[in-house]
Amino acid sequence: MKVDLRLYAILDPERTRGRNLADLARAAATGGATLVQYRDKHAGTRDLVARARAIKAALAGTGVPLLVNDRVDVALAAGADGVHVGQDDMDAADARRLLGPQAIIGVTLKTQAHLGELATLPVDYGCIGGVFATGSKDNPDPPVGLAGLARLVDSARGTRPGLPVGAIAGIDATNASAVIGAGADGIAVISALFMREDVEAAARKLRGIVDGALAARGATDAGR
Amino acid sequence: MKVDLRLYAILDPERTRGRNLADLARAAATGGATLVQYRDKHAGTRDLVARARAIKAALAGTGVPLLVNDRVDVALAAGADGVHVGQDDMDAADARRLLGPQAIIGVTLKTQAHLGELATLPVDYGCIGGVFATGSKDNPDPPVGLAGLARLVDSARGTRPGLPVGAIAGIDATNASAVIGAGADGIAVISALFMREDVEAAARKLRGIVDGALAARGATDAGR
Repeated sequence: MKVDLRLYAILDPERTRGRNLADLARAAATGGATLVQYRDKHAGTRDLVARARAIKAALAGTGVPLLVNDRVDVALAAGADGVHVGQDDMDAADARRLLGPQAIIGVTLKTQAHLGELATLPVDYGCIGGVFATGSKDNPDPPVGLAGLARLVDSARGTRPGLPVGAIAGIDATNASAVIGAGADGIAVISALFMREDVEAAARKLRGIVDGALAARGATDAGR
Repeated sequence: MKVDLRLYAILDPERTRGRNLADLARAAATGGATLVQYRDKHAGTRDLVARARAIKAALAGTGVPLLVNDRVDVALAAGADGVHVGQDDMDAADARRLLGPQAIIGVTLKTQAHLGELATLPVDYGCIGGVFATGSKDNPDPPVGLAGLARLVDSARGTRPGLPVGAIAGIDATNASAVIGAGADGIAVISALFMREDVEAAARKLRGIVDGALAARGATDAGR
């Protein structure tokens, strides 16, 4: 499935100011999020399933898919559309086998080694991690920055032409345009969306920036 | 499936003195364990799957099933025989839907409320928790003791005649016979098996005690 990564909204209960996850997901989708991920490293499985179901129900009719971070069991039980797997999570090939060909499976890419594996991974998108410094996740590695991002995106496109490639970590309204300018197909955001008072408005603004930057990049590419 | 709970060996990496999980599982099975569970609340999913696969491979040819605690995704990916779910884990009905009719699914029973739900749960066994004090798990509730165990087993049998019912928490060679005398079909052990120097010998001794107590109980029942 061709995944739309333009505004990838990642819901982490630790970064929501304690608000209802389903309400926030709906607000993000209404504002223009194109993909939602539920990421929760602390809740027990029973709560994970209940929350994922509530988020999935809140997204009904929006056309916005829901992915679950890491947990294939939760995705299956809640009827989510797929999973996002990091380097410590289930192998993408195992996840594909359990979820089937229709599921969306995405992977985090942080290094050239990860990009080397990308050739054979049964995934629908890649997301370059660690672009800028972030408070949303402990990250021992230094940020790759815009130049690093551009290199990694180029490398991913060389390995898997046509694969959507997003970017994550520290992305907000101030740098989203530059991220798209560096070659990403979209931005994954956590705090820049779900720590804001008005999530729908924040989504609308970010989506506008991404769409504008994609259009500008398209014009530049066409003019070459 | 009729599950044999006589000696239910629970492998938790925190209670193994750092030894290889697959080797320990094999030693337990050789000594007489009838069921093995892999329980790990800390490892990432990729490691969980790798370890579960190694344990499953070590049990090949023994006829001893492997269950995974809580994680249906890990059980599916590793080809384990089922899961054990506690009250914070996936609902047994969801687990059954994902694992299919052939899987073994067991549930922890600690209170009369849990026992009330047992009537409709699609499970293959119940395990009465909190029998004695234990160092293997934080447990805020006081132990139910032998009298409490006998009441809970009776209640479970009233709700689900024929369902195998085990017991867990603080069970070792000194009290295993009394646990069986109180009505349990078997004992679930962690430290009494996997913290011992010679796991195979510890399993053989525990299995002997259980078999002896079951035979004595059978003789008593028959003599009534």
